[in-house]
Amino acid sequence: MTASDKTTANAMWGGRFAAGPDAIMTAINASIGFDKRMAAQDIAGSRAHAAMLAAQGIITDNDAEAIGQGLLTVLSEIEAGTFPFRVELEDIHMNVEARLKEIIGEPAGRLHTARSRNDQVAVDFRMWVRDQCDAAIDGLRTLIRAFVAQAEAGADWVMPGFTHLQTAQPVTWGHHMLAYAEMLGRDLSRFRDARARMNECPLGAAALAGTSFPIDRHATAAALGFDRPTANSLDSTADRDFALEFLSASSICAMHLSRFAEELVIWSSAQFRFVRLSDRWTTGSSIMPQKKNPDAAELLRAKVARIMGATVALFTVMKGLPLTYSKDMQEDKEQVFDAADTLMLCLAAMTGMVEDMQANTEELRRAAASGFSTATDLADWLVRELGLPFRDAHHVTGTLVALAEGKGCDLPDLSLADMQGVHAGIRADVFDVLGVDNSVRSRQSYGGTAPDQVRAQIARWKDLLG
Amino acid sequence: MTASDKTTANAMWGGRFAAGPDAIMTAINASIGFDKRMAAQDIAGSRAHAAMLAAQGIITDNDAEAIGQGLLTVLSEIEAGTFPFRVELEDIHMNVEARLKEIIGEPAGRLHTARSRNDQVAVDFRMWVRDQCDAAIDGLRTLIRAFVAQAEAGADWVMPGFTHLQTAQPVTWGHHMLAYAEMLGRDLSRFRDARARMNECPLGAAALAGTSFPIDRHATAAALGFDRPTANSLDSTADRDFALEFLSASSICAMHLSRFAEELVIWSSAQFRFVRLSDRWTTGSSIMPQKKNPDAAELLRAKVARIMGATVALFTVMKGLPLTYSKDMQEDKEQVFDAADTLMLCLAAMTGMVEDMQANTEELRRAAASGFSTATDLADWLVRELGLPFRDAHHVTGTLVALAEGKGCDLPDLSLADMQGVHAGIRADVFDVLGVDNSVRSRQSYGGTAPDQVRAQIARWKDLLG
Amino acid sequence: MTASDKTTANAMWGGRFAAGPDAIMTAINASIGFDKRMAAQDIAGSRAHAAMLAAQGIITDNDAEAIGQGLLTVLSEIEAGTFPFRVELEDIHMNVEARLKEIIGEPAGRLHTARSRNDQVAVDFRMWVRDQCDAAIDGLRTLIRAFVAQAEAGADWVMPGFTHLQTAQPVTWGHHMLAYAEMLGRDLSRFRDARARMNECPLGAAALAGTSFPIDRHATAAALGFDRPTANSLDSTADRDFALEFLSASSICAMHLSRFAEELVIWSSAQFRFVRLSDRWTTGSSIMPQKKNPDAAELLRAKVARIMGATVALFTVMKGLPLTYSKDMQEDKEQVFDAADTLMLCLAAMTGMVEDMQANTEELRRAAASGFSTATDLADWLVRELGLPFRDAHHVTGTLVALAEGKGCDLPDLSLADMQGVHAGIRADVFDVLGVDNSVRSRQSYGGTAPDQVRAQIARWKDLLG
Amino acid sequence: MTASDKTTANAMWGGRFAAGPDAIMTAINASIGFDKRMAAQDIAGSRAHAAMLAAQGIITDNDAEAIGQGLLTVLSEIEAGTFPFRVELEDIHMNVEARLKEIIGEPAGRLHTARSRNDQVAVDFRMWVRDQCDAAIDGLRTLIRAFVAQAEAGADWVMPGFTHLQTAQPVTWGHHMLAYAEMLGRDLSRFRDARARMNECPLGAAALAGTSFPIDRHATAAALGFDRPTANSLDSTADRDFALEFLSASSICAMHLSRFAEELVIWSSAQFRFVRLSDRWTTGSSIMPQKKNPDAAELLRAKVARIMGATVALFTVMKGLPLTYSKDMQEDKEQVFDAADTLMLCLAAMTGMVEDMQANTEELRRAAASGFSTATDLADWLVRELGLPFRDAHHVTGTLVALAEGKGCDLPDLSLADMQGVHAGIRADVFDVLGVDNSVRSRQSYGGTAPDQVRAQIARWKDLLG
Repeated sequence: MTASDKTTANAMWGGRFAAGPDAIMTAINASIGFDKRMAAQDIAGSRAHAAMLAAQGIITDNDAEAIGQGLLTVLSEIEAGTFPFRVELEDIHMNVEARLKEIIGEPAGRLHTARSRNDQVAVDFRMWVRDQCDAAIDGLRTLIRAFVAQAEAGADWVMPGFTHLQTAQPVTWGHHMLAYAEMLGRDLSRFRDARARMNECPLGAAALAGTSFPIDRHATAAALGFDRPTANSLDSTADRDFALEFLSASSICAMHLSRFAEELVIWSSAQFRFVRLSDRWTTGSSIMPQKKNPDAAELLRAKVARIMGATVALFTVMKGLPLTYSKDMQEDKEQVFDAADTLMLCLAAMTGMVEDMQANTEELRRAAASGFSTATDLADWLVRELGLPFRDAHHVTGTLVALAEGKGCDLPDLSLADMQGVHAGIRADVFDVLGVDNSVRSRQSYGGTAPDQVRAQIARWKDLLG
Repeated sequence: MTASDKTTANAMWGGRFAAGPDAIMTAINASIGFDKRMAAQDIAGSRAHAAMLAAQGIITDNDAEAIGQGLLTVLSEIEAGTFPFRVELEDIHMNVEARLKEIIGEPAGRLHTARSRNDQVAVDFRMWVRDQCDAAIDGLRTLIRAFVAQAEAGADWVMPGFTHLQTAQPVTWGHHMLAYAEMLGRDLSRFRDARARMNECPLGAAALAGTSFPIDRHATAAALGFDRPTANSLDSTADRDFALEFLSASSICAMHLSRFAEELVIWSSAQFRFVRLSDRWTTGSSIMPQKKNPDAAELLRAKVARIMGATVALFTVMKGLPLTYSKDMQEDKEQVFDAADTLMLCLAAMTGMVEDMQANTEELRRAAASGFSTATDLADWLVRELGLPFRDAHHVTGTLVALAEGKGCDLPDLSLADMQGVHAGIRADVFDVLGVDNSVRSRQSYGGTAPDQVRAQIARWKDLLG
Repeated sequence: MTASDKTTANAMWGGRFAAGPDAIMTAINASIGFDKRMAAQDIAGSRAHAAMLAAQGIITDNDAEAIGQGLLTVLSEIEAGTFPFRVELEDIHMNVEARLKEIIGEPAGRLHTARSRNDQVAVDFRMWVRDQCDAAIDGLRTLIRAFVAQAEAGADWVMPGFTHLQTAQPVTWGHHMLAYAEMLGRDLSRFRDARARMNECPLGAAALAGTSFPIDRHATAAALGFDRPTANSLDSTADRDFALEFLSASSICAMHLSRFAEELVIWSSAQFRFVRLSDRWTTGSSIMPQKKNPDAAELLRAKVARIMGATVALFTVMKGLPLTYSKDMQEDKEQVFDAADTLMLCLAAMTGMVEDMQANTEELRRAAASGFSTATDLADWLVRELGLPFRDAHHVTGTLVALAEGKGCDLPDLSLADMQGVHAGIRADVFDVLGVDNSVRSRQSYGGTAPDQVRAQIARWKDLLG
Repeated sequence: MTASDKTTANAMWGGRFAAGPDAIMTAINASIGFDKRMAAQDIAGSRAHAAMLAAQGIITDNDAEAIGQGLLTVLSEIEAGTFPFRVELEDIHMNVEARLKEIIGEPAGRLHTARSRNDQVAVDFRMWVRDQCDAAIDGLRTLIRAFVAQAEAGADWVMPGFTHLQTAQPVTWGHHMLAYAEMLGRDLSRFRDARARMNECPLGAAALAGTSFPIDRHATAAALGFDRPTANSLDSTADRDFALEFLSASSICAMHLSRFAEELVIWSSAQFRFVRLSDRWTTGSSIMPQKKNPDAAELLRAKVARIMGATVALFTVMKGLPLTYSKDMQEDKEQVFDAADTLMLCLAAMTGMVEDMQANTEELRRAAASGFSTATDLADWLVRELGLPFRDAHHVTGTLVALAEGKGCDLPDLSLADMQGVHAGIRADVFDVLGVDNSVRSRQSYGGTAPDQVRAQIARWKDLLG
C-alpha cells in the first residue's frame, strides 16, 4: 500500500482500528493497488499461453483467437485509463480475466487451463524486471555518454586529485569523469548479466508441480522472448532471486551515483567552487544571489538509501521461507517497483546534471597547484633520473618543500640553484615534471591521468557506446 | 514518489528518459505528492504561530484572526477533498500558504514572519510522528487485550512448549499468549518513551539560527501540546532522530508480530493443526476443502521486512550529513509514512486474527503429552524429593524413559514397581508431577507456566490495561 | 567466529571443505570463542543463584559456600588469563561449570538445580548489555563535556551556518557545538530508557516453563541489581528485544557521530580550513607538509555502518522465529559485542578529537561574512521595524544585495543614502543588524544562536552534567 | 577489530575511556589485526611488481631477485606462524616491507617504486575476494552434488508439495531437491560473473593518478592471473564494487540456504517427521530420547542475517564517499572476511547435512496422500478428457471431494458409480490420474515433478557438474 493510497484509506477508515476486519483484510491482502503495473506483461503472457494451448490442441483455435483479441481490448482499455479496476478481485490477474469474460464470454474460462496464478505472477514479474534491466542499461549508456562528453571537453583541465578529501596529486578533469564511466560501465554489465540469468520462462510450472496437459513450454518461452523455459517447477514459483539480483545491482549503481552527488554538493560550496550546476537542478534564494542549493544532487545522494532499504526488505522477506509460494512473496513487487522507479529517475536526473554542469577551470587549476601537489613528481624524478633510493628521494623532496614553504612559493618557483643546494645532482630537466601540467602529462602509465591516456580511454568508450 | 503515482508518471513520460529535464526535476524534487499527509499538522502549527505572533505584538490581532479563520477554511477544503493541490508549489507548506493568500489576501503574507520552511517542516513532521506513537500505543493496547482474552480462555489448556521447534516441556496456552503480551507491553513502553523524548517543539528555530523577532517559543510549544521548546535551533532543523527512534521501535514491534505470525503459519499446517484461523484471515481452495491458506499471517510475517527496510533507508540517508538542513532529509517522510501505515495495519490485522482464532485443545494436549515431555519433571522430583545430585537424577530418568519407550507407553503409565525397580526410593507421590496437567501445575515459580501464575499475570495485565 | 579466529581456522583446515564434518559442526556450533566475554556475568549470576538456592533450603549452605568460593577461583583464573577454555565444552556456561567441578567436586553438580542454560544465557547476556548501556552513558557524558567545553571557548565566534552546504546565516561556534550536545543528550537518555526497560531478571525461567523448585526469583533479581524478575518464563528465554533496543540506540548515536565526522573531514580540507585536527588523530605525508589526512574522522564516519550492519543482522535473525529458544539466537552475541566495542571506541575517539581540535576563527569569520549572509537580517529588520509585508521586504533586500554586488562590497558597506535610495524609510539603526556579529547577537529567540542564548544553554548543560 | 581481540583490548584498557588517546587511535586506526589475512596476496603482488620493475629496467635484476627471494622468506615465516606482526606498523603492507628490509636490506626500499599503498591494498583485496569466488564456486558444486544425490535416491518418492505451508499437490522428493540445485546453480553463475568482472588488475594505479615510471601494467596483470589492467587509476583505488557484488551474491546464496534450513527445522519437528538429521548436525537431550535439536540447520537459517548485515554495512560505508581513497574504506575488509568465512562454513555444513539426512518416506507419502491432494488432477482430467470448462470441472470436483469427505475416504477410494452419479461422463481411466503416484507421474511438462522429468534433470546436472 503506497503512501498516497493511505491518505484515502485513512479518510475512509476514520480511526484505523475502527475499521471492520473485512476492510483490514482487504487492505493487507489485495495487491491490485500496485500489481496493475504489470498489466502489459500479464496480457502478453496470457496471449502467448492461449496461442500455445491452441497450437497444442488443448483449446480450439476459435477460443484462442477470441481470447487473444479480447486481451488486446483489455489492454487498450487499461492504456486508455478506462479499465474498471476492482479491489474485490484482488489482483491484476483476476481483474484481467474477469474483464475478458465480460468481453468474450465463455471462452475466457479456458485461458486458465494448464496454468495457475503462481506461474502467472512469476512470469509477469520476471518480464517486468527484465524490462527494468533494459531501462537501466539504456539509462546507463546515456549517462556514460554524458560523462564521456565532459571528459572530452576537459581531457587536459587540471584539478586536484583527492585522497581523504585532501589534495594529493594533480589529475585531469577528463580522468575524473572517466572514473565514473568505468563504475557505470560495470553497473551496466551487471544488469546485462542479471538479465541473461533471469531470462528463463517460468510459465508452465502451474501451481507448483507442472501440469499433465501436453503444453509446450519452449514455445511460450520463445514467444515471450525468453532463452528457454525454467527447469524446475517448484523453483519457478518459489524463488525471487532474479529480483534480488536486480535490487543488488541497482544498489551498487545508486551507490556510485551517490558518490558523484556528494562531490557535486561539496564542489558547489562557496569554499570549493569547482563546478556550477545549472538552475534547473538547483534552487536559490530570492535575497542571497550566490546561494544555489544543489537539491537534485542531495536527493541523488539520498536515493541510494531508498534502494538499499528496498533490497534489505526483500532479502528479509525471503529469508527462511519454505517452498513453494508463500503469501509473503507478495511483498516483492512494491519494493522492486519503487527501487526501479527510483533508479531510473536518478539516472535521468544525474544525466541532466552532468550534461548541464560547468567546471570552473580556474578554480580547479588553482586548487590543483596549491599544497605542493607535485612533491611526489619531484620525488619520483629523483628516483627515476638520479637513481636515489625511495626514502632518500623523500628526504630531499621534504627539504625542498620546506625551502619553498619558507620562501612562500611553490616547488616550480624554486631556482635550479636552490635545488642543487639541497642535492647537487638535480638538473634543469627536473622542471619538466614540476607544475601541474607537467605532472599530469607525465602520468603515462596505462589508465593514468595523462591527457593522452584520457583521450585513449575516451576513444575506447566511444567505440563501446557505438 | 509512490508506486501508484509512478504508473501515471510512466504513462505521462512515455520512455522515462524522453522526459525533459524540467519534468525530471519536478519528479525528483516535489514533495507535495506525499507531504500533503501532514496538512492537518501544518495548519495546526501555522494557527499556533499566528496566534503567538499576535500575542507578542508582531502582527495585529486582525491579521491573526484572518489567518486563523482562513486556515480553517483551507483545512475544511482539504478534508472535503476539494483542495486544489498544485505540484508546481512543491510542498504542503507552499500549497497551504498560496491558498490562504487567495482566501484572505494580504495578511497571508505575514504568517511566515519569524518562521522558515525548515522549522515548519520539522514541527509538522514531529507532530505527525507523535500522532503515530499514540496510534501505536492504542493499537498495542487493543492487541494485548486480545492476547489476554485468549490467555484467560485457556489459562490451563496444556500445549507443548518448544525449543528448536522440538517439544521440550508442557506449558499452558495462556502462558504462551501472555509471552506476547509481555513483548508487546515493552513495545508499548518504547513508543511512550519515544513520544516523551520527541515532545519538544522546534517551531521558532526559523531557518537554522533562531530569529530576531521577539517570539514566544514556550507559547507555541504549549499550544501544540509539546512539553517545551527545543533548546538548539541548529539541532532542531537538522536532526531526525525522533523519526529513527519511531522506526526502530516499530521494527522491534513488527519483529514480535512476525514471530507469532510464523507460529500461526506452522500451527495451521495439516501436520500441526494447533489452531483454526477464521475464514476472514485466510483464503481457501474451491476444491480442497481443508486447504486454508493463512494469507494474513504470512503477510504479517513479511511486513517486518518492510518496516526494517524503511529503517535502514532513513539511517542511511542521515549517515554523514553535515548540519543543518540538507535536501536529503526530504526522503524521511515516505519511509516513515509507509512504516507507520504498515505497523498500524499489522496491529489491526493481528488483533483480528488473535480474536478470531480457535485453539484446537485436543491436538495441543496430544502434542504436549507426547515425547516424554515430563521427563524433566521426573528428574526435578528426584532432585527435590530424594536429594539426588542433578547428574544422577538425569541418569535415573533416562533409564525410566528407556523403560517406558520399550513398553510403548509414556512415563505416567509406568507402575510404581517399574519405577522402584530403577530407583528404590521413588514414592507414589512421584505421579503428582507426571502427566501434563501435573507438570504445568507444578511450575509455580514467579512467571512460570502454572495456571495460577498465569491467572495472576492476567490479573496484572487487566489492571494495567484499565 | 571472528576474523582473526578464522586465520587459524583456515590454516587448520587447509581447504575448508576438506575438513571433516565434526570440525565443521564445531566451527558453526561452538560459542566459547566469543561468549567467554560474558564470564564475569556468568559467574555473578551463578553465585546469586547458589546463594538463593541455599536461602530457600534447596541446597545446603555448605554446598552454596563451596560453589560461591569455587566460582571466585574460576573468575580469578579467567582474569589472570590462566583459565583453560575448551572448545569441546561449547560455551562459557559449560566451561565454567566443568572447571568448578574440578575445583570443588560433587557440590558443583547442584549449581544447575532449578536452572537451565536458556535462562542462564539470558541473564548473562542481559547483564552484559546492561553494562554496555552504562558504558555508553559514561562515554556520552564525557563527549558532551568536550562539546560543551568547545562551546564555552567559542560562544561568540562567528561561523557560517549551512543549509545544503551553502552558507545561509552566520551562527556561533558555540551554538554549533551545542547542537551535538543536544543530539548526544537524547542518545544518552535513550540508553537510560533501554537500561531501565531491560532491567528485569530472567533467571528462574529455567528451560522455558519456570520450575517446580521453590525458588525466590525476587531475591536473585535483587542480588544482581535488577528491578524485578521478568513476568513470563517463555518470553524470558525467547526474546532479545533488549539487545535490539541497545543496537538501535547505538545506531542512532553512531549516526550522530558520523555527521560531525563528516563535518570534520570537510572542515579539514584545504578549501575550508575551518578546523585543525591534532596530529594524534590524523596521518600525514612526509613530503606534503600541509596534507593532514583526517583518518580518525573518516573511520568514525564509517563506523556507523558497522553498527547498523549488526543491527540489521540481529533483526533479521529474530524475524519469524517461533517461541522459545532457537539456536539461531546464538548469533545475537557477536553482533552486539562488535557493535558495543565499536560504539565505545567511537565515543572515545570522538572525545579525543573534539578536545584536541582547534577552530580556525579567522577563516570561520571570513566564511561567515561572505555571500551576503546577513540578507535575512536586513529583510527581517524591514518587516519588524518598518512593518513591510514579508514579500516586499524580500524585494527591497534583493535590490540592495544587487546594489552591493554591483559595487563589489557587502551589505554593511553600503551607505545609508544608498539604502534610502532603494527604500526611503530605512534608518541608520539598520546597521545594528548587519555584519555577522550583529546578526548573531540579534538571534535572541530561545535556543537561538545569540551568544547570550548559547551561554544560557552552556549553563544548563553544566548543571545537567554535574 | 574482532570480538576476540576485544577481550584483550578490554583487559588492556581497563575502563576503556581511561585509555590514553594514542591507544584509542591505534585501536581505531591499525588494520594489521585483520588485514594480515591478505599476506599471501600481498606478497604475490609485490613479487609480480618487482619482477616487472626489473623487466622494465626500473630496478636492477639483482635487486628484483633479492626482493623476490626475501618475500618468499617472509611468506614462509607467516605460514609457519613465526612472523612478528607489529601493530605500530599498522597494516600488512608495512609489516611485510619492514621485515623484508630486515632480511635483505637496502634493495627492499626499491620495491615501493611506482606503487602506493592505495593500489597495493586494492590488488591484494581483489585477489582475496577472487579467491573467495573460487571457493564459493567449489563449495556450491559440492553442495549441488549432494542435492542431486538425494534427488537420485528419491526421484519417485512422493511427498506433499506445499504452498503457504498447506499441502497443495503431491510432488517427488527428487523434484524438491532439484529445486535447490537450480537456485544454487544460479548462485554459482553469479559468483562466476562477479569473478570475471572483478578480474582486472589495479596495480599500477599508484596513489591515484598513475605513475611516470615506464611500468608495464599488462605484465603484472598477467602475472597475477588478471585478464587485463584496470582502465582508470582513480576508479582503481576508489571503488569497491567488486566486494559489494561478492557480498550481494553471498547474501542471495545464503538466503537460499536459509530456506532449506527452515524446511529442515520444520521437517524435523515431531509433527512433521519428514526427515531424520544425523546426530552430527543435531544435539539431543540425555533424558528425552526423541528430542533432536536441529542446531546446525537453525544456525544456517540465521547466518544469512550475518552476511546481509555485512552487506548493508559495506554499502553504507561506501555511500556518498568522494573520490578517491578515503580511510572509511578500511572498513571493507572485516565485513567481507566475516561474510566469506560464514558463507564457506554454511556451504560446508549444509553439504554435510544434506549428505547425511534421511527422508522418512512413509511419512512423506502419508502426508502427500492426505487432504484430497489430487483434486486438481481430477479437475484437470475433466477438462482434458471430457472437455469441461474450467469452472464446471471445479464444480464437479468439489462435489466429488465433498462426497468422499462424507464417506471418510479419499478420492481414489470412490467407486466409478459414485463418480458417475455426479457426472455421467466420467470413465474408469479417471483412476489413472488419482492417487499420489499417478498424480506425480502425470506432471510430464518440462521441468515438472514426474519422475521421468526429474531423472532427465538429474542427467543434465550430472553432465553440468562433470
